[in-house]
Amino acid sequence: MSRYTYRLIASDGMARRSELTTAHGLVKTPAFMPVGTQGTVKAMYTDQVRATGADVVLGNTYHLMLRPGAERVARLGGLHRFMNWPHTILTDSGGFQVMSLAQLRKLDETGVKFRSHLDGSEHVLTPERSIEIQGLLGADIQMQLDECIRLPASEDEVARAMRLSLAWAERSKAAFAAMGGPEKGQGLHGIVQGGDVKSLRIESARELAAMDFGGYSIGGLAVGEPQDVMLDMLETTLPELPETKPRYLMGVGTPEDIVESVARGVDMFDCVLPTRAGRHGLAYTRFGKINLKNARHADDPRPLDETSNCPAARDYSRAYLHHLVKAGEALSMMLLTWNNLAYYQSLMAGMREAISAGTFAGFREETLAGWARGDIAPHVP
Amino acid sequence: MSRYTYRLIASDGMARRSELTTAHGLVKTPAFMPVGTQGTVKAMYTDQVRATGADVVLGNTYHLMLRPGAERVARLGGLHRFMNWPHTILTDSGGFQVMSLAQLRKLDETGVKFRSHLDGSEHVLTPERSIEIQGLLGADIQMQLDECIRLPASEDEVARAMRLSLAWAERSKAAFAAMGGPEKGQGLHGIVQGGDVKSLRIESARELAAMDFGGYSIGGLAVGEPQDVMLDMLETTLPELPETKPRYLMGVGTPEDIVESVARGVDMFDCVLPTRAGRHGLAYTRFGKINLKNARHADDPRPLDETSNCPAARDYSRAYLHHLVKAGEALSMMLLTWNNLAYYQSLMAGMREAISAGTFAGFREETLAGWARGDIAPHVP
Ligand SMILES: [Zn+2]
Ligand SMILES: [Zn+2]
Repeated sequence: MSRYTYRLIASDGMARRSELTTAHGLVKTPAFMPVGTQGTVKAMYTDQVRATGADVVLGNTYHLMLRPGAERVARLGGLHRFMNWPHTILTDSGGFQVMSLAQLRKLDETGVKFRSHLDGSEHVLTPERSIEIQGLLGADIQMQLDECIRLPASEDEVARAMRLSLAWAERSKAAFAAMGGPEKGQGLHGIVQGGDVKSLRIESARELAAMDFGGYSIGGLAVGEPQDVMLDMLETTLPELPETKPRYLMGVGTPEDIVESVARGVDMFDCVLPTRAGRHGLAYTRFGKINLKNARHADDPRPLDETSNCPAARDYSRAYLHHLVKAGEALSMMLLTWNNLAYYQSLMAGMREAISAGTFAGFREETLAGWARGDIAPHVP
Repeated sequence: MSRYTYRLIASDGMARRSELTTAHGLVKTPAFMPVGTQGTVKAMYTDQVRATGADVVLGNTYHLMLRPGAERVARLGGLHRFMNWPHTILTDSGGFQVMSLAQLRKLDETGVKFRSHLDGSEHVLTPERSIEIQGLLGADIQMQLDECIRLPASEDEVARAMRLSLAWAERSKAAFAAMGGPEKGQGLHGIVQGGDVKSLRIESARELAAMDFGGYSIGGLAVGEPQDVMLDMLETTLPELPETKPRYLMGVGTPEDIVESVARGVDMFDCVLPTRAGRHGLAYTRFGKINLKNARHADDPRPLDETSNCPAARDYSRAYLHHLVKAGEALSMMLLTWNNLAYYQSLMAGMREAISAGTFAGFREETLAGWARGDIAPHVP
């Protein structure tokens, strides 16, 4: 069984192109990971997800432990088989969603006790149980349990949560070894916390680096703070992490967030934006974000982007997409989600090529300029 | 441009296998036509619809005239291009849905005035306007405007509506010729009415046959009456229609309704059942109708039907489908609709082969026996 390994292919400034090996294949980075919260990337078939260029999808431990249940997924052969995705799967620890979705949370040093948002049933998530669940799901890339707090928060509170997360990092690593994760070719990430406090971010990164994780995640960003604060934290944190390990910026983000983060050395991203936007009539394109609900599209025979090789972007008129959105048709979600994931993946592929060619700065400038120019001129019948 | 023509290939008892030629291809009958109410077969890509074996889809005049509007669809190149379906399209006249959906209806001999269920705007549908709309959409197979009444109804009321429909049949045919339908290779169906009154059904069929339509539809059935009444009306009506023209039983039905109607000489069907059921957790299979919401599927690793060549039926466990349904995921609608349309089409293909082989009676018996046996035994872990 192959180990979770990182191989640098090229770098350009701080931007890195690399290849991760997991038990379920190669992951080309910079990588965007579509979110498959409940064992499905919403409104997409897995072969479509794969065809857009995704090497890895994300599963949510919180949702899957509640329904259908981790033990059940294990009996059914694991999450890969359950959802028909034979490629790499990354899972989060469940901690973030316990904080945002569950009821009656009670957190102490042991872990977090909570009630399901689905049926009120009581559950406990500890560092050990989180790793056990991720192992039952069969995730190739797993996350330590951490405590992710909302910003703004006092420095004392940020420090407390960061240090608790460090303690849980050690326990997660021990549990991962005890569960045989390394022998299964799985990898475990430590998660850097520290809010918007540089010294705490640095402390967190150094302590985690010393524990020698398979990879490193940056948590607790893109939770409401301005983009420049997020980028500032990346610039502070990334130099403290080993160059030979992947770096995953959790829950980020907009296309611009991603380009700016790659420029600072991030390798991996996940975000619900492209899938969620696709369910709300919004299309991400090289012309920026397009709102298909807008009446300007009602008579427009042109596709979203005739140069795209995604059928959703190329083969359907804006007038048709507008109609589907207005009519509330499932196909509007299907086509726009498809377009959005394809656009995100084409952006990642473009960055990978530019890094290899040593033209990342130009690619970044042109891409941002394209978004700034905005959509093509309205159709004149 | 090819004309709308009917060619008999084989018959077995009263069951007929044939091939219709339209301006957009061949239609193998007995045919099931998936319903694409608002210019999309709900939760399906058109290439999937085609791959299940569908030769024709149905568009709803009422919905499309209100949104996005027939003139708009025409400017955009017609319904085929609008919805990316380059094969045959059949449209209804709009009359049935005015009666079931619109507000403040006022019907007289001229036509029907109504308010849109979407925005309350006032519209008029006459025989001429219905044909005009169907022509603007570019439908290959068009329907006369008729008045479809609910059963039970008094014989006087049934007779009045049937005779009004005959008058509208003449006006529809004249409008269809004036609009150049025949030159475009399009076909027009007259619609047999007469409720559950045999003598009125016979009168309607004879009068329409004398008008020489491109095809004949049987309307006003499967509107709440018992199946045996419906079949009785078919046995009464079909012998009055020319053998050299297609026969379309509108809005029907369950798999059993379809098999029994084919046995009596019907060629074409449409129904929202397979698509609507797919959005409500129900799967049509050779084992009958399966409710995926049922907890018996929660741990079942087996697919709906391992012998199916539809990926939705073959490549996903019942446990996964159950999970998707319980979680309200779009993919449950996508997969179950796909399964249902594939099953309906496989049923039609099976009947076509059996008719050619002269084994229709045996096919019918085996198929009904399969449904009666019900689902496979529950999974024992
Ligand atoms: Zn996000
Ligand atoms: Zn029906």
